[in-house]
Amino acid sequence: MTHEHTWLSELQAAINNRIQQLEFSDHPKNLYDPIRYILALGGKRLRPAMALLTYKLFRDDFESFLDPAIATEVFHNFTLIHDDIMDKAPLRRGNPTVHEKWTEETAILSGDVMMVVAYQLMMKSNRNTSEILQAFNTCAIGVCEGQQLDIDFEMQQDVSIEEYLEMIRLKTSVLIGFCARLGALGAGASSEDAQHAYDFAEHLGIGFQLQDDFLDVFGDQQKVGKQVGGDIIANKKTFLWIRALQLASQTERDLIQKWEQTTTFNAEDKVREITGIYENVGVKEETKAEMNLHFDKSMAALDAIDVSEDRKKPLRAFATYLIQRDQ
Amino acid sequence: MTHEHTWLSELQAAINNRIQQLEFSDHPKNLYDPIRYILALGGKRLRPAMALLTYKLFRDDFESFLDPAIATEVFHNFTLIHDDIMDKAPLRRGNPTVHEKWTEETAILSGDVMMVVAYQLMMKSNRNTSEILQAFNTCAIGVCEGQQLDIDFEMQQDVSIEEYLEMIRLKTSVLIGFCARLGALGAGASSEDAQHAYDFAEHLGIGFQLQDDFLDVFGDQQKVGKQVGGDIIANKKTFLWIRALQLASQTERDLIQKWEQTTTFNAEDKVREITGIYENVGVKEETKAEMNLHFDKSMAALDAIDVSEDRKKPLRAFATYLIQRDQ
Repeated sequence: MTHEHTWLSELQAAINNRIQQLEFSDHPKNLYDPIRYILALGGKRLRPAMALLTYKLFRDDFESFLDPAIATEVFHNFTLIHDDIMDKAPLRRGNPTVHEKWTEETAILSGDVMMVVAYQLMMKSNRNTSEILQAFNTCAIGVCEGQQLDIDFEMQQDVSIEEYLEMIRLKTSVLIGFCARLGALGAGASSEDAQHAYDFAEHLGIGFQLQDDFLDVFGDQQKVGKQVGGDIIANKKTFLWIRALQLASQTERDLIQKWEQTTTFNAEDKVREITGIYENVGVKEETKAEMNLHFDKSMAALDAIDVSEDRKKPLRAFATYLIQRDQ
Repeated sequence: MTHEHTWLSELQAAINNRIQQLEFSDHPKNLYDPIRYILALGGKRLRPAMALLTYKLFRDDFESFLDPAIATEVFHNFTLIHDDIMDKAPLRRGNPTVHEKWTEETAILSGDVMMVVAYQLMMKSNRNTSEILQAFNTCAIGVCEGQQLDIDFEMQQDVSIEEYLEMIRLKTSVLIGFCARLGALGAGASSEDAQHAYDFAEHLGIGFQLQDDFLDVFGDQQKVGKQVGGDIIANKKTFLWIRALQLASQTERDLIQKWEQTTTFNAEDKVREITGIYENVGVKEETKAEMNLHFDKSMAALDAIDVSEDRKKPLRAFATYLIQRDQ
């Protein structure tokens, strides 16, 4: 984080501080230890930050809204615990996943409790609690639908771009969108402004996810800090992969499918050849264009919120920070 | 069900009818099919019946309360799906469990969605929604704690009677208690009456569970309709097993532990010998006494509710039906 983002660091510190203050029972230990564990693994806390920055569009007393804001982080970590079981993932943020460190049973149950704790914290809003809970229900169902689609797509050969975009919208962006709606409703905003806030954050989330796909292939390895082409190596059905198969010539399509089916290969060769096809068929530009379309829609929704430009500065800076990331 | 319980049959029909009317999306199919499946497996719908009969203590328009009432059945079935994964159970009500019929991933996710659907339905109460949701959060956390304790106890040799009673209270009875509190709060009852209703149903639930343990050993096979002594055969740590080990002589304790460790045996011999010890050490009477203690506390709490005896008749009949069951 550069010095320009000290305001974000301060916000993250306030969020982390409140998360550390959450008190969980010591009994049964196997139920609550995993919750303390995953919440202590850190992360950028982007979801509560989004909720609080949106709250600050309308009101200054954001400290009173910390509990509903961190509810989104508790919910997010519940989905991580359950997703990690389904994906059989051994590591999360460089540490053993909950089902690896404890058992699958404990991971299921601890996740279940975290969902309830998220509701408890969400109910501490001083305003619009019923609207907030209804929106949260819709969001939570959407996130589960997105995860199911992601699982289904692993077995499905002909996923369309529309289906892919709908999957990432549900799996990652409805929660980002909800965070902004939560902040707006919690601050007593009108339902119109709450909807604009939702649209702003949901499109930002979709753009962010497409940028993720893009940077995995075309990012600067030094800045990305991980192996370029990881998605290609893993045959991950990203926006680029799906669209390339549609645009490719028969020869190129055969080459992609040959790489997909080869289990022993030189990673650099695979990444170079597939990336070459991505550039040939114009998928690089198309992904950037789709990404920018969502960033533009996001900004238009932010513009439409009925508060002064001055109040929008922190949220706009947050969006810029997310859009201009190179990692 | 005998003809005396036509009122209960009618209530169950109304509950089943409302459950059938629940509309779930067709997409993603793998997420919603398991929900339709488990809700169609049936069961006695005792939890929504408890909620509706408690509602009827205070108000006559119980039809308006069907959605919050069936929320308890949706929640209960969510816990069944997740518990069945943890217990690696192949069958539920004579049919394949969700994780067997689909996959474990789908069972985790469908369960998660059902918890959210339970919140959605619960929020349709016309009165005391915030109190109801707070009580529901507490209940849901208690149920998870009970399940974790049940898992922990499998590995723990020295479970005390107090620990066992607390486990069954959390795992099964706080939900029954909550159903009664839900009905009372939904009908606009005072918080005192809602607490009496909770106590009535929670103690009824504990007594019911102890009766379950008791009938498994001392029930009439013809009426119970399943093999007598199933818990004994499976080495299940019931109230009777735990208490018998405490009261037994060294010789009897050795015999129990010998049976516990023997993997190949004649089931009838094991059941006969262990049942003999239960009778010798007085566990039969003690279990009945503990069970009746909870039924008495339950009745005292029902007496304390501030409505006419006439209004209490259906709920009292329901309690009697549950207490006097022989299956």
